[in-house]
Amino acid sequence: MSVCRIVRPYYNLLKREQSVSTLSSYRDRSFYKYFIDMQTRLRDNDYYGHVNNVVYGEWIDTIVNKYLIDKCSLQPLKSPLIGYVVSSHCEYYSPVSYPSTISLGLFIKKLGKSSVDYQVGIFENNQSLKASAVGGFTHVFVDRTTQRPHPIDQEFRNKLSLILN
Amino acid sequence: MSVCRIVRPYYNLLKREQSVSTLSSYRDRSFYKYFIDMQTRLRDNDYYGHVNNVVYGEWIDTIVNKYLIDKCSLQPLKSPLIGYVVSSHCEYYSPVSYPSTISLGLFIKKLGKSSVDYQVGIFENNQSLKASAVGGFTHVFVDRTTQRPHPIDQEFRNKLSLILN
Amino acid sequence: MSVCRIVRPYYNLLKREQSVSTLSSYRDRSFYKYFIDMQTRLRDNDYYGHVNNVVYGEWIDTIVNKYLIDKCSLQPLKSPLIGYVVSSHCEYYSPVSYPSTISLGLFIKKLGKSSVDYQVGIFENNQSLKASAVGGFTHVFVDRTTQRPHPIDQEFRNKLSLILN
Amino acid sequence: MSVCRIVRPYYNLLKREQSVSTLSSYRDRSFYKYFIDMQTRLRDNDYYGHVNNVVYGEWIDTIVNKYLIDKCSLQPLKSPLIGYVVSSHCEYYSPVSYPSTISLGLFIKKLGKSSVDYQVGIFENNQSLKASAVGGFTHVFVDRTTQRPHPIDQEFRNKLSLILN
Repeated sequence: MSVCRIVRPYYNLLKREQSVSTLSSYRDRSFYKYFIDMQTRLRDNDYYGHVNNVVYGEWIDTIVNKYLIDKCSLQPLKSPLIGYVVSSHCEYYSPVSYPSTISLGLFIKKLGKSSVDYQVGIFENNQSLKASAVGGFTHVFVDRTTQRPHPIDQEFRNKLSLILN
Repeated sequence: MSVCRIVRPYYNLLKREQSVSTLSSYRDRSFYKYFIDMQTRLRDNDYYGHVNNVVYGEWIDTIVNKYLIDKCSLQPLKSPLIGYVVSSHCEYYSPVSYPSTISLGLFIKKLGKSSVDYQVGIFENNQSLKASAVGGFTHVFVDRTTQRPHPIDQEFRNKLSLILN
Repeated sequence: MSVCRIVRPYYNLLKREQSVSTLSSYRDRSFYKYFIDMQTRLRDNDYYGHVNNVVYGEWIDTIVNKYLIDKCSLQPLKSPLIGYVVSSHCEYYSPVSYPSTISLGLFIKKLGKSSVDYQVGIFENNQSLKASAVGGFTHVFVDRTTQRPHPIDQEFRNKLSLILN
Repeated sequence: MSVCRIVRPYYNLLKREQSVSTLSSYRDRSFYKYFIDMQTRLRDNDYYGHVNNVVYGEWIDTIVNKYLIDKCSLQPLKSPLIGYVVSSHCEYYSPVSYPSTISLGLFIKKLGKSSVDYQVGIFENNQSLKASAVGGFTHVFVDRTTQRPHPIDQEFRNKLSLILN
């Protein structure tokens, strides 16, 4: 049973539209290296009965920071480096809806001197092989005090490299 | 490791304040009949590093509607009855923080002719015996077309009764 | 033109239901001492086309803290006192919907030694004389370092007293 | 007075980073054709005291749909066409913080047969000439019943053309 009114995937919409020329090629689960489950919330649904596209940004933020905190020992309120988001994007292929538990996957696409490009796949559940949406963002790490970009130290870099693809 | 700055529970604050006279007595896990896990999200945290008190309302909404949809066959966009929230409340005892998976518990405190009073406990994790917060709300069920209060039918009532306390 | 599906006020629902016995009597605009406008957002609407009841909490939080910051010189990240929310509530009388600019009113109902009870009226627009919803919460102020309740100083108290009712 | 901890703009971060190669050139207020004000909310702030980057998506959604509803007579729950978001993006130049009223600007960058590319500038206030962030998304309009892409009719197209740039 579902509260979702719409079954047709957005994917065909994308293919038909010339205006969308940069389709992501990261829909396969196999690209992703780190996964978490995420419960949807009633408030996530918009008035078509789908998760509002804005909410995907909350999930992307959540898995990236969870990896940084749990696996890379980042302490958002104390660590000498702070990551600022300078750019974000998302492509939507098919809707997801509350109530459900979706599955999020993460890998790092580019690891610069002080910047990181994260790629996140949003999967309808933990069996899904094709992402319902693919998004991501770029972090630039700055020194907490000077607020200037600062190179990522080797230990942090090693942890990030574990999910580099 | 935690991003939470504050370890002292709010509980003592409540006890000291005469102005808060109606303390909930529903902190024990044993009151609750239906449980779900809930992933916290980065955006849930406020600038003290705690989940913002507003977010608790999203969770309360989520567990109640999940029970109605999964266990009582409610279809929010189709069922003849719609539940309107007429009143809500929450008492806060100790903070919770992203990143973590909290545990939500639900029971029904009062089952009227067309209204239901839900009580929700927010537990730090699924081992916690005392709720970090206790909230709830009152639903009045109305006919989707006439928008007038309408008695809950027997089948729906039976499902709700399973978690009556 | 409106995206709202439902015109019947919740008010009658409340009157009919014995289970809701503590109706707020603070619906009159004249009770309120400080007002701000608030733009609704698309995401505020739930799948019935109304603002989700959870969002009212965001607005209540916003007007209270705006008063504290703008009028009482509170600096959430620096001031020696931090206000913790220990209890919150809201009663809903009639729906509001995006897109619209609603009007929020605030007064203080009780000013304790270290606690404050705020009452907030949510008005459909700045001409409305009766609140669509009435909510509020209780702050207990604690010392940022010790995390223990701390009396509000005289200057702060004077500013709060300006909207005491 | 401000609760914002960080004064250094992100702009320099972007310039320094090779990994961000597609900088938006739409920071000038003069590009934008339609403006609304937007009150920030306490919950918008993250734990660095800035508006969380996810919230910008809520604002972008809000101004676009407000234009469609107020100026193009779109009725989200009734109109024969529904707009689906297939792709979204945002670039961040400098932080904004609660409490403040920000200014949003909108123009249409591309008007296809059934798709529309919106560009939104987020300005710190209604005097700001350079956007603090620039985002946008692509709508594909589908028939509400068949869920297949459907050409935008002439009247709707005329209204959209008013803010084409």
